[in-house]
Amino acid sequence: MKLYHSARSSASYRVRIALACKGIPYESRLLNMQAMQHASPEYRLVNPVALVPALDIGERVLGQSLAIIEYLEETHPEPRLLPPDALDRAYVRALSHLIACEIHPLNNLRTLNFVRKAYRQDEQGINTWYKHWIADGFSLLESFFAREKRHGRYCNGNEISMADCCIVPQVANAQRYSCDLAPYPTVMRIHDACIEMPSFIQASPGNQGEKWWLSPIEDGKR
Amino acid sequence: MKLYHSARSSASYRVRIALACKGIPYESRLLNMQAMQHASPEYRLVNPVALVPALDIGERVLGQSLAIIEYLEETHPEPRLLPPDALDRAYVRALSHLIACEIHPLNNLRTLNFVRKAYRQDEQGINTWYKHWIADGFSLLESFFAREKRHGRYCNGNEISMADCCIVPQVANAQRYSCDLAPYPTVMRIHDACIEMPSFIQASPGNQGEKWWLSPIEDGKR
Repeated sequence: MKLYHSARSSASYRVRIALACKGIPYESRLLNMQAMQHASPEYRLVNPVALVPALDIGERVLGQSLAIIEYLEETHPEPRLLPPDALDRAYVRALSHLIACEIHPLNNLRTLNFVRKAYRQDEQGINTWYKHWIADGFSLLESFFAREKRHGRYCNGNEISMADCCIVPQVANAQRYSCDLAPYPTVMRIHDACIEMPSFIQASPGNQGEKWWLSPIEDGKR
Repeated sequence: MKLYHSARSSASYRVRIALACKGIPYESRLLNMQAMQHASPEYRLVNPVALVPALDIGERVLGQSLAIIEYLEETHPEPRLLPPDALDRAYVRALSHLIACEIHPLNNLRTLNFVRKAYRQDEQGINTWYKHWIADGFSLLESFFAREKRHGRYCNGNEISMADCCIVPQVANAQRYSCDLAPYPTVMRIHDACIEMPSFIQASPGNQGEKWWLSPIEDGKR
């Protein structure tokens, strides 16, 4: 398997955690998103929608992080990232989608770039946008945890699940933008427990090296 | 089962289609989102994250449209909305998530409301934002179909799937904002085939009546 990914992209990070948790070996193909390598003709041959991550499994290239994790779960069921009971699975998926659908899309690179350009926002303006959606989304997460009361050391009791693959990258991104995360103690307690584990350390942005799949590009432009 | 939903919300519409396709009866609890009924204390007791849809199955209330559809698929497998082969499932999920994660979140009510307020956008400004993300996202969909070559009458060959539950509501929303959809012939051909089916007609926004779950609210405020 080859994983096309970027060190900082949350969605890439989710899949790296899942691969590491399941002990699945893969070749890393790292893209420099700041230099727009994901929009390059070379990468569009791999993934026509120009998004990361993409997992090349030989016969096909799979896209969309949660669809990839579900595929990995079906083809490499142990150790599991989805619990066996349908209601428990619905809980883990709801939490994962709360992050992947309600928080991340508002703060990913293509959205920030558009807000910057369309509304002439400087870095401070972008930070305001970013922090708004983190505060909004993390409040949703805390409300969800408070109501469901199903978390333990991790999102789903004391068992690592797909939801942990989503929550850790989202916190990492929020920390990069210096968001105040003190108001979200449950989220942070789970994050702190997860990032101690070897699989999460192996998958972390800081451990991806800087060997770009495409050659380095001068001044951020192709 | 009780479905808390709104007629126009794409995510609600997805779940209505899945319920109709599977022939699962449910009680309708319609919310008036223009009047912010989803943010009311009454609804927060049902769903603390104040989003629609939510499916009350008695012992629990399930949230997040795709997590709900996956639950329905596991508990009511026939007629299926996910194909039996893992790679085919990855395709259907990737397409569903492309809509649910890359298009819809940028154009849902909470995002539009924030853009309107934060960047002082009038209706024309909101339309520009909306149309940008439809054009961007629908181009992704066309590229995806062109590369995968797995669509037929519907998203996955000639079998209705979860992806059709996602594509039809997204087109309906884009039509409501008068987006030019001529550049997306594959998306539109699939949409047009789907909406002829009785289950899709039954689930459509126009067939939800106007019996609000909470009493009508004067002048849009609580």
